[in-house]
Amino acid sequence: MKKTIHILEPRIYHYTFGPNEPALIVSSGDTVVAATRDAGGFDNKMAPMPEAQKPKSEATLLCERNPLAGPIYIKEAEPGDILAVTIEKIRLNRDCAWSRHRARFGCLTGEVPGQELLLNEPVPERKFDWQLDLERQVGILELEKSKLKRIEIPLHPFLGSIGVAPRFGRVEPSLTPGEYGGNMDCVETKEGTTLYLPVWVRGAYFAFGDVHAAQGDGELCGVALETTAEVTIRLDVLKGRSIEWPRLEDETHLMTTGSARPLMDCVRIAQVEMVKWLVSDYGFERWEAFQVISQVGTMRIGNVVDPNYTVVAKFPKRYLPS
Amino acid sequence: MKKTIHILEPRIYHYTFGPNEPALIVSSGDTVVAATRDAGGFDNKMAPMPEAQKPKSEATLLCERNPLAGPIYIKEAEPGDILAVTIEKIRLNRDCAWSRHRARFGCLTGEVPGQELLLNEPVPERKFDWQLDLERQVGILELEKSKLKRIEIPLHPFLGSIGVAPRFGRVEPSLTPGEYGGNMDCVETKEGTTLYLPVWVRGAYFAFGDVHAAQGDGELCGVALETTAEVTIRLDVLKGRSIEWPRLEDETHLMTTGSARPLMDCVRIAQVEMVKWLVSDYGFERWEAFQVISQVGTMRIGNVVDPNYTVVAKFPKRYLPS
Amino acid sequence: MKKTIHILEPRIYHYTFGPNEPALIVSSGDTVVAATRDAGGFDNKMAPMPEAQKPKSEATLLCERNPLAGPIYIKEAEPGDILAVTIEKIRLNRDCAWSRHRARFGCLTGEVPGQELLLNEPVPERKFDWQLDLERQVGILELEKSKLKRIEIPLHPFLGSIGVAPRFGRVEPSLTPGEYGGNMDCVETKEGTTLYLPVWVRGAYFAFGDVHAAQGDGELCGVALETTAEVTIRLDVLKGRSIEWPRLEDETHLMTTGSARPLMDCVRIAQVEMVKWLVSDYGFERWEAFQVISQVGTMRIGNVVDPNYTVVAKFPKRYLPS
Amino acid sequence: MKKTIHILEPRIYHYTFGPNEPALIVSSGDTVVAATRDAGGFDNKMAPMPEAQKPKSEATLLCERNPLAGPIYIKEAEPGDILAVTIEKIRLNRDCAWSRHRARFGCLTGEVPGQELLLNEPVPERKFDWQLDLERQVGILELEKSKLKRIEIPLHPFLGSIGVAPRFGRVEPSLTPGEYGGNMDCVETKEGTTLYLPVWVRGAYFAFGDVHAAQGDGELCGVALETTAEVTIRLDVLKGRSIEWPRLEDETHLMTTGSARPLMDCVRIAQVEMVKWLVSDYGFERWEAFQVISQVGTMRIGNVVDPNYTVVAKFPKRYLPS
Repeated sequence: MKKTIHILEPRIYHYTFGPNEPALIVSSGDTVVAATRDAGGFDNKMAPMPEAQKPKSEATLLCERNPLAGPIYIKEAEPGDILAVTIEKIRLNRDCAWSRHRARFGCLTGEVPGQELLLNEPVPERKFDWQLDLERQVGILELEKSKLKRIEIPLHPFLGSIGVAPRFGRVEPSLTPGEYGGNMDCVETKEGTTLYLPVWVRGAYFAFGDVHAAQGDGELCGVALETTAEVTIRLDVLKGRSIEWPRLEDETHLMTTGSARPLMDCVRIAQVEMVKWLVSDYGFERWEAFQVISQVGTMRIGNVVDPNYTVVAKFPKRYLPS
Repeated sequence: MKKTIHILEPRIYHYTFGPNEPALIVSSGDTVVAATRDAGGFDNKMAPMPEAQKPKSEATLLCERNPLAGPIYIKEAEPGDILAVTIEKIRLNRDCAWSRHRARFGCLTGEVPGQELLLNEPVPERKFDWQLDLERQVGILELEKSKLKRIEIPLHPFLGSIGVAPRFGRVEPSLTPGEYGGNMDCVETKEGTTLYLPVWVRGAYFAFGDVHAAQGDGELCGVALETTAEVTIRLDVLKGRSIEWPRLEDETHLMTTGSARPLMDCVRIAQVEMVKWLVSDYGFERWEAFQVISQVGTMRIGNVVDPNYTVVAKFPKRYLPS
Repeated sequence: MKKTIHILEPRIYHYTFGPNEPALIVSSGDTVVAATRDAGGFDNKMAPMPEAQKPKSEATLLCERNPLAGPIYIKEAEPGDILAVTIEKIRLNRDCAWSRHRARFGCLTGEVPGQELLLNEPVPERKFDWQLDLERQVGILELEKSKLKRIEIPLHPFLGSIGVAPRFGRVEPSLTPGEYGGNMDCVETKEGTTLYLPVWVRGAYFAFGDVHAAQGDGELCGVALETTAEVTIRLDVLKGRSIEWPRLEDETHLMTTGSARPLMDCVRIAQVEMVKWLVSDYGFERWEAFQVISQVGTMRIGNVVDPNYTVVAKFPKRYLPS
Repeated sequence: MKKTIHILEPRIYHYTFGPNEPALIVSSGDTVVAATRDAGGFDNKMAPMPEAQKPKSEATLLCERNPLAGPIYIKEAEPGDILAVTIEKIRLNRDCAWSRHRARFGCLTGEVPGQELLLNEPVPERKFDWQLDLERQVGILELEKSKLKRIEIPLHPFLGSIGVAPRFGRVEPSLTPGEYGGNMDCVETKEGTTLYLPVWVRGAYFAFGDVHAAQGDGELCGVALETTAEVTIRLDVLKGRSIEWPRLEDETHLMTTGSARPLMDCVRIAQVEMVKWLVSDYGFERWEAFQVISQVGTMRIGNVVDPNYTVVAKFPKRYLPS
């Protein structure tokens, strides 16, 4: 079987998921390789985004966060299909990452930019420069004011933003995750995972970016180890099956996602989706699915800082009928 | 002083707030008169929306709810300005309105379409036809299964959806209220109120629609008395003053809005905005403003059914320094 | 008909709703008159609570907030009954009230004492002394740092805390409102209102206190115009009817309450209760009740600062079948 | 060193955390062994709770859920101390466990008993009988209506309810977790974990029960694999150190808990507690602690069904300074 590999070198980085002008047109089954820019637009040499590579949009102000490679138009994709996105490779390609604390961003400091929820003074801004040792796959931070002077953590790179054109129009800014995927900031969109996305628009308009070298649950301060990578992804259109929310699968787990507010609704969306998945594809009766999930299901909190939060529900595949 | 009045007869009804092609270009100080269609696209004769008047958008699926008159491009409006929208007249022009209960919509039945949060069975769908007596300005509903056979309520028409192009791009669907106004479904956007909207995009792109003949707090079942009206609005650009969220003013109150989830964040946004307003425009010290608001401020819950909820904070103008 | 009036002069002020030793035993139909202490324990001369009047409780620490007059044991009250509490008179009897801003209390500053939710610095503590002109029934605050130097507001005295022994045991601290009423801090428990409380425990153990001379919706800073009053209340046991949550009635409205977290659940509890009330007592079919409430119901936000928040749903009595 | 082991055979099982009459008085450093009853009061032979072993409480209705062994009075414990509870052994001693779906309980069906939040029909009640193979430490459920006919899951027994007398008075019902621990229903209170509890009341009044043989994150349907065990616990009073919320420690992690509503506040409480722990005990500067936690911390959702939800924040001990 012939395998088609496309090298995507974006001329424009979009800040939105939606039916923007395709950077690439591919067929179901094709593979795409692209180098991503980081959440602030810096490339793997820390060069900032050239003005020429920003989308022209005279009428609108844009939130210049999370520039995306894409969109990729998949010829076979039609509304009602599933786009299966297999993350074959995330090869980090920069020896540094940054994080920062912002005055009113992050779940312990205040909230989304532009939404002042409190009369308290904001917290101090601070930037953190992490060194990435790509050979040993660890991140290193010098701590200036703590007893511990240096922390070294294992890297587990993943795509913070990955999705398709949404159900309605365009998502601006790309900070908001939803039923199209998007900026879920969940650690499970990693090498080896297949992400199933609902196709809402002909062509699907798949895009991705915002590589995190590592991140804790919830992305509490609002900024992970922001960096760049060369990413290899295979795209397959699944006909005749529909889903309402992104789902994931790796070697060990089925996973469903809910991106909403409040946090409790993320839990509810993801778990209702899991019940529906077990019923439709694996022969479970609804209430028996609910019982089994209640006893063996786990959850990861993706982010609690974006305009929508994200929760991932996980079900161990060893409990599926063979 | 010359007064310019524009009659707007939309050729296209947009379902989105954003920099869509302007239906009308006006100057600050001008007045616009337009007939609205109802939330389902029906006009004042109950004729459905002709296909030719729907926006062409090959790539996207649209949520065909809340068709809007506009957008209106105001020549003087630049980002950072305020657009003052004076609602001079809302003249109801149809003798009926409808409401409905939907299976998973409304705050006591389930939530936003596409987000199944529960495993319970959905509630029964049902349509309610209200008769509008325009002379007496009352709405009448025949109750089929209750002891009370007929209810008659006073009308208080208002615009459910009214706003400008948002901070980033386009809001799709128009069901979602936010910092641009939009589908706030709050009873205060009524005749005699001036709505102050932040201008995010050159020209402002003001639009409105979704007239409700009456509605309770929260729009609990998700659908008010949906009808049509002839609406008269004056548009003034205020230079040199910025706001972050819509504000309102009528004869008796200053009002601020917060549209977000969860509901508590609406309260926080609206009240922080009120403190900021009293400090910036009326000479209050921050904590004294907070104290006074705590003792005399009131709140209305606009909607608790849309993708963002809306709360209106109200401060009596008689407590302002003269 | 003979009318029995009891003068209650508490020897002990309890800080808890629950089956504490009765201060008074009365019959259904009796009237009770009592002078309350304010939320901080001060009486109408600003004398602090004597140690001898605090409840003995060697084993427990107590939150010394909201001392209550009572409990009053009503002989006829049995679990499953309703206690109808008619607030006949709230006569303010002190020429001053106080409010304060606390470091981590109030909905715009942080939350419940002992629950640090943020890493921000707390807000400045500040006390506000309101003068009460009892003849003119106005409150007066001197503003030290604002352009406006003096604010004068009408008083509308109400009982911040009023309730019975809860479903299970004792509520400690009395800061938490719930299905037994309690510290709802809602402006509707005012002169002329009848409050219906579910009876959970034989005798009901009714208690009240925490008079507010005035308060805005939500009690945003966490502290209203805290003062004292002489309160006259009539207590009637209604046999053969049960309710799950406190309800209220005045000349114009039926009212239901929900006290919970998050705020949205307060809305849901109160409105489901209103549907149930219209169905059980006024002959409405369930979905027609829901439709009518959706169009004519209003809501007041009682408090958004206590361990449970409170929302009051209101239905105009003129829409009831005659 | 002498080791004192107490065998606790409760004459009364309390349904409340609080200063109830002690079942046992011990010294710091002592060990207690007790057989628990399950959440419904059944013992290891499935014999129901004898009336004589229920607490006498004429005045109050009790929620007869989660009967507790204890309380245990620890002589050295004073307010402001920490009680370190080392769970040395949880030996399951019954060959069956039960779970159930209730009409309006559990996060996908509705909510807390007595709080009807929706107008939807409730879900079907159903009981599930799990067989426990204690030798192989697996639970087995026969599925009647699914393709999969039988599911076998590994057991990981833990204490659903474990805590001390709360800050104020008594917690009734014991269904509510809080700053005293209680019904956290979190999988980390397992063999090998040390739980640190704040002491609010002289003697601490430690109690425990509600053994779960297994449970998924969130305890979604509201009921885990409810069973019984023989539990061995060591109790040590730590003087001179105070905490505000329960903390845990096992071989690999520091853990902090938040029990509140809404769910997001659980996240905030637990993570602020973790920052405070790293600062006070491990020499981290506040904002560097926040940065490191943001990148390496994880979370478990304990329960999303009880009157308060519970979240556990986890920090890997390998990142602590040596």
